[in-house]
Parts: sequence; C-alpha cells; structure tokens
Amino acid sequence: MAGGARPLAVSLGDPAGVGPELIAEAWARREELDLPPFLAVGGAGLLADAAERRGLSVPIERIASPGDAAAVFPQALPVLDEVDAVYTPGVPDLAGARCALASLTRATQLAIEGEAAGIVTGPISKARLAEVGFAHPGQTEFVAEACGVLPGDAVMMLAGPQLRTVPLTVHIALADVPQRITSAMIERKGWIVAMALVRDFGIAAPRLAVAALNPHAGEEGRMGDEEVRIIAPAIQALQDAGIDATGPHPADALFTPRARETFDAALCMYHDQALVPLKALDFDSGVNVTLGLPIVRTSPDHGTAFGIAGKGLADPGATIAAMRMAGECARRRGLA
Amino acid sequence: MAGGARPLAVSLGDPAGVGPELIAEAWARREELDLPPFLAVGGAGLLADAAERRGLSVPIERIASPGDAAAVFPQALPVLDEVDAVYTPGVPDLAGARCALASLTRATQLAIEGEAAGIVTGPISKARLAEVGFAHPGQTEFVAEACGVLPGDAVMMLAGPQLRTVPLTVHIALADVPQRITSAMIERKGWIVAMALVRDFGIAAPRLAVAALNPHAGEEGRMGDEEVRIIAPAIQALQDAGIDATGPHPADALFTPRARETFDAALCMYHDQALVPLKALDFDSGVNVTLGLPIVRTSPDHGTAFGIAGKGLADPGATIAAMRMAGECARRRGLA
Repeated sequence: MAGGARPLAVSLGDPAGVGPELIAEAWARREELDLPPFLAVGGAGLLADAAERRGLSVPIERIASPGDAAAVFPQALPVLDEVDAVYTPGVPDLAGARCALASLTRATQLAIEGEAAGIVTGPISKARLAEVGFAHPGQTEFVAEACGVLPGDAVMMLAGPQLRTVPLTVHIALADVPQRITSAMIERKGWIVAMALVRDFGIAAPRLAVAALNPHAGEEGRMGDEEVRIIAPAIQALQDAGIDATGPHPADALFTPRARETFDAALCMYHDQALVPLKALDFDSGVNVTLGLPIVRTSPDHGTAFGIAGKGLADPGATIAAMRMAGECARRRGLA
Repeated sequence: MAGGARPLAVSLGDPAGVGPELIAEAWARREELDLPPFLAVGGAGLLADAAERRGLSVPIERIASPGDAAAVFPQALPVLDEVDAVYTPGVPDLAGARCALASLTRATQLAIEGEAAGIVTGPISKARLAEVGFAHPGQTEFVAEACGVLPGDAVMMLAGPQLRTVPLTVHIALADVPQRITSAMIERKGWIVAMALVRDFGIAAPRLAVAALNPHAGEEGRMGDEEVRIIAPAIQALQDAGIDATGPHPADALFTPRARETFDAALCMYHDQALVPLKALDFDSGVNVTLGLPIVRTSPDHGTAFGIAGKGLADPGATIAAMRMAGECARRRGLA
C-alpha cells in the first residue's frame, strides 16, 4: 500500500459488542491478509483493552488526521482521536451507545468529504442507539440520509465467497411482503444492483437472477399471481433496458451449486429468502454492502454478539471480508 | 442381502422423464453402493431401452412375484411384469401417464400388503396424471389415502446428508402461509416428525428446531406476531409433552454450519424456507421421505426433468439416496 493512500474509516460499533476486538484482530493480521490501510474512528482506550483481552499485541497510535493513517498502519493501529468509552464487553450502556453513534457519524463524514476511501461499520445495537436518539431503522438508512440518497435507493447486498443476494424488502413481517413488492421497486433496485456490479465489483456485464415469491414460481398463477402480475413485468423492463435479468426463478432452484454459476447477484423478495442461503453457505464471511451510495460502505454481516464479546470467541472472518471488499470497491472507484 | 429379503418396490415415474434411466443406473451400481434389493414395478421394455440409451448393460428379468426379486437382484434388474410403455424420453403422453399411475398404484399396494419392504416413487408429471384422472395434488396424498392416513398427517421431510427439513405448508401462495399455520398443526406435525425420527431414523431423543415465520423471528412482535401468537405456544406444547423442541429460530440463523449441528430436523413454515437451504447444501442427493405412514415411502427430490431425459445427463444421486434411505427405514421397522 502506498504511504499516501486514503485509508478506510472503520467505525467501532457498540463498544460492548464484538466490534472492537475484531478491529484489533484484523489489524494484527494485516500483513498476512494484505489488508488495505484503515483507521479506527475513536476508541483508543477501548481498542487497547479489547486487544489485550483477546491476547493480541496491538500498539495503538492516536492520529489527528486521516492523512496520517497509511504511514502509521504498518506499525500501529491508527485511531482518530475523537471519542472513546470504557471497555465493558457484554454489558452495553448509554455511554457506549453514544460512542458508537459518534464513531459512525464521523466515519461517514470522512468518506463523504473524501478523506476516507470508504467506511466499514461495526455492529451496533439498534435498541441501544434508539435510547440515545438515533431515529433510523439501521445504519444503512443513516448513511443513506447523510449522503442525500433516498432510503429506497440505498440497496443492501449480502456478499459471500459463493453467493451475492439482495433482499428487496427487509425488516417487515412476512405477511406484508406480497403487498410491498412492486414492479417499479424491483426495476429500480435491479438497476442500482446492475450499476453497482459494474462500478464496484468490476463485472462488465452483470447477470441478475430474480427470485419468485411463491413456491415453484407460482406455477403460472396457480399458487399466487405475483410472478405474473409484478415480477415478470419488472424483469421485462430490465431486459428492455439492456440489463441481463432472468426469472422469476423458483427460489429453491436458484441456490444450487449449478444455478449459482449462472448469475452475479440474486434479487430476492424478502429478508430470509436472501439470507437463508447466504448464511447456510457463507456464514463466517458474509459482507453487507450498501449499493447506490456516493461512498463505499460495507459491514460484517453479524450483530453485536454481546453474549460472546470479550471472550476471544468471535470469528473475524466477516470483518476481514468487509474490509477487503471495501478496499476493492474503493480501488475500482479510484478512491484508494 | 439375504436371498429371502423383502425388496423395495420402485415405481417408474413418468416413462418420458428421467425415472427409468435412473432406476437402471442404480441397479448397475448396486454392488459398488451396496444397495438394498429392489424391483421395478412394470416397465420391462422401457427400462431396457432407457438403460441402452444411457449406455448401461442392464439385463432385465421379469418376475411374477415380489418374493422372487431378492434372488434375481444380483444378476438382473427384477421387473414385476405388470405394465409397460414405449420409451419416448422427453415426450410425455397419455399412455405413459397411465403406465406411471399403474406403477405407483401397484407399488403402494405391495407395501401395504407387506410384499415389499417399502416404496421408492419415481418422478411424475402432475399435469399429465391429472389428464388420466389422478385427482390428488401429488403422490404423497395418493399414498396417504391408500394407507388410510389423513392428508395432513402424511408429513413431507426433505433429507440430505447435511440437513433434514420439514415444510409445514407446501404448495400454497406465500401470501396464504400466515393464515394457514396454526398451533395445533405445528404441534401435530412436530409429534409425527419426532416419532418418525425415532422409529425410522434410529434417533433415540430427536431434537426439533422450529423456524420462525418472520425475519429475526419477528423481534418480539415488531415484525409480525405469528411467533408469539402461534409458533411459541406450539413449541411449548411439544416441550410439555416431553419432545425436545426449540425455537422459534430466525430462519437465517438456523442453517449455518454450527446451527445445523444442534437439531435433527427443522420444522419450516413454508415450502421455500425448507427447500432453499436443502437444495443449496445437498442438491443432488436430497430425498423426500413421507413420515407418519404405516409404510416406508421415499422419493428422489427432483422432477421428471423431461428436458434432459434420455440424454445421459440426469444425476442418479437422489434416486440412490432415496433407495438407501428407504432400505434403512425398512430395516429399522423390521420390514427388510
């Protein structure tokens, strides 16, 4: 990595979760894994404590400007000296929630202002953040608003070594899914996914597979008509616009080893349709990427895991994969 | 296998599908795979043609009684000389549908009468069978009725090397799923699954994991209340009856490698919730087992595949796994 390269900005997540120890572990393995340079946004004290608790030797160096990170990165974990908290793994509190929010806010600003190549956000507790005034459903919506992007245009993609899936609806009851999916929404998000696969993933002619909602894709309307009424017209519209979109595919046929080779991303109608196959296949290395933003943003696809925080048990695979993917996307955009 | 052992009865499925060639291939590999003795119910001519088309050397021996099958099996594929059809792979017709129905009917009778150790049913075309007067939604319902079992008490389980799943609702629109699941149904089917795991699979203390309907298991009612209202009470009732049932588990967390080790079968709320992870993990070896019947019945978890029939492309994994599983279940019941 060149000394002057723009670093990734990594937010801490909830200090009582597994976020801090995984940042420390990733830094400790930076050479072996050839990770792009990153800085932690705050948490100098708690990162030192988390590293020690995990049995890692991680020198911390406080920096005043993101521009100093790349030069520091080979010798020490660069920490932008903004906020900090006491390290109490497994025991979240309001001070920690405030620290998590400040870290997320500043990391996002750094990317928007061009001082960071992109952001990797650590896992937060929505319930805790809500208690300190965070009004967004999740970090994705927060980052989208900060970037001036409509919430519906910030598209979550889950990416693992074997599969990329996009849930078109996310945190709603399954009973509400059939009413929420529209042709316009599928078409719009299909566009955003296709453009992101070109720009961020270097796939010149991306292939989208669109999943059906009903079993056997509804069997021509015999078991639900959303395929005929909503999904097929959206696929046609994407095809008419020159996008390689296929479907609606019966979901159970879409994630077999052979089927997975036929597409670059699967558009799924609901949360579990996208996440069940991804976690079955790529559990410890799934990355949550937000597509359609002016900045690069990734996140490990797991929660705070308060129950195992500070015990040396948390798997760093997803955090490492998120850092690597953010670095690759930033390079493709010419940001890193 | 002892010479006098009761054979499995294998129905042909649609003669224009991949069923016949897979029966022939399984017989050709009987020694290598140590398959239990089986007979084909009809199809002497078409099995010979299907074998030849696939490049297999499969001598056919017509038998008059199932009792002759085991002695014949080492040297030739025993065929109960009942029905036959012309082999026209990829081109289904009414004569073939009648042959498929006759084969299924007779195979089922053989098992009910105790002349066969169990049945393995080949893939049929529901649309073709409907044209010759078959009024059941599928083979499972047909076999259940023949056995005098209520349709709801014949429970489909999908079993692969890595996972067993049970879809509690099957061929209905996704929008109808929330109205169809009831506590009584989950409890009843949970019982049937638990008992079958003991009797047919030799698991003395089976562990059932019950999936949630909504993402994140509804987050205590914030994204759907079926977990609180319907699923949790059913789990409690199963536990009160001494069955090791857990959940409702968020579906995306239920099929990770670690989670899969914690249960023997997952009860799923809808078709794709059960079949997506199974086919993602165990595509070519998934077996459909009907639990709760007085007879043993398995089936390969794939369709007629008319498009590849007769081309030597169909994978025999699921048929072989279905035969092996039927043989094991029959042995545990003392039938083979």
